Amino acid sequence: MAYSPVNRPILASVPGVNPEFQRLDTNTVWEGRIVSARVERWRYADGEEVEREVLGHPGAVAVVAHDDEHVWLVRQPREAVGDPALLELPAGKLDVDGEPPVATAQRELAEEIGKRADEWRELDAFYTSPGFSDERVIVYLATGLTDEPDGPQPDGGERIEIVPWPLERLHEAIEACEDAKSLIGLQALAALRR
Amino acid sequence: MAYSPVNRPILASVPGVNPEFQRLDTNTVWEGRIVSARVERWRYADGEEVEREVLGHPGAVAVVAHDDEHVWLVRQPREAVGDPALLELPAGKLDVDGEPPVATAQRELAEEIGKRADEWRELDAFYTSPGFSDERVIVYLATGLTDEPDGPQPDGGERIEIVPWPLERLHEAIEACEDAKSLIGLQALAALRR
Repeated sequence: MAYSPVNRPILASVPGVNPEFQRLDTNTVWEGRIVSARVERWRYADGEEVEREVLGHPGAVAVVAHDDEHVWLVRQPREAVGDPALLELPAGKLDVDGEPPVATAQRELAEEIGKRADEWRELDAFYTSPGFSDERVIVYLATGLTDEPDGPQPDGGERIEIVPWPLERLHEAIEACEDAKSLIGLQALAALRR
Repeated sequence: MAYSPVNRPILASVPGVNPEFQRLDTNTVWEGRIVSARVERWRYADGEEVEREVLGHPGAVAVVAHDDEHVWLVRQPREAVGDPALLELPAGKLDVDGEPPVATAQRELAEEIGKRADEWRELDAFYTSPGFSDERVIVYLATGLTDEPDGPQPDGGERIEIVPWPLERLHEAIEACEDAKSLIGLQALAALRR
């Protein structure tokens, strides 16, 4: 039978469940406001053990929200990369205990853009940088948009400029965006519209 | 004139150069093997000052290498996300002082896949998670592939399975990949081939 990468079985990825690939222990070595760092010891199927430095992140959601005319983007300062006005999808961290990810996405769309959506669909989910971080981002498609009666309600301290980007110039948005979630979400939207 | 997000001027993004958006100071609070954490103070144009926690990363490269039949992927254990065999583009960190990014990409393609390429082209570059990390990944397209005489030479400790993925099933690779650089690179390849 031909080698088929698609149907290759993936081993269980939950630490402790699969004896072939197992996390032996984990120790938090630094705790920040958003992320923390831990040093972990892992054992492979052949018995070799390795130590890994892992950043823990609560995960995040991003929203591709569009109507017939626009896809709704934001610009905001991103100090980490020294940009005063990075163009991005609306997004937020999963930092409210017990809140389902789609509810976080709905809240972020309301707070940042001032919109609600009738239809929500998961477009994609991905790890931002699996070599050292466990951050996973779920990207939703939001359609059937209507205005929130009270308009946008940004979190205290957030400086968000709403950017209604013409849908017919979607490819220019893909060129203008510079971050993973926005590129992946807008490329997925472009694929849907072809 | 209609509002044009595309032509909106982007302010200078180099800290210290633009008086409107300025890093006032930075203090390293934790240093790991790959990343470090710093607490920074920034000032906006209106004078408001904020404190931000920023992770510093050396940056990385990823390679979309293909011939007429295959795009060359890898599977490797990714302890950070608990996956013993994550499917990804070949990639590596910019951790050799003074090495230009394209040279790092060439080295990684040789070490991980055992190939060299006649043509190199930058496909895309992006921030993995600009809300808290400065990591930027440059994705290269590599074509005109030939075998390295000595075959793959993985770094000590790396466990890399080479996956020659049939190019005609590129869309299945996009479905199977779960990390930012691989999704962005393979979606860009799919766009080139349409």
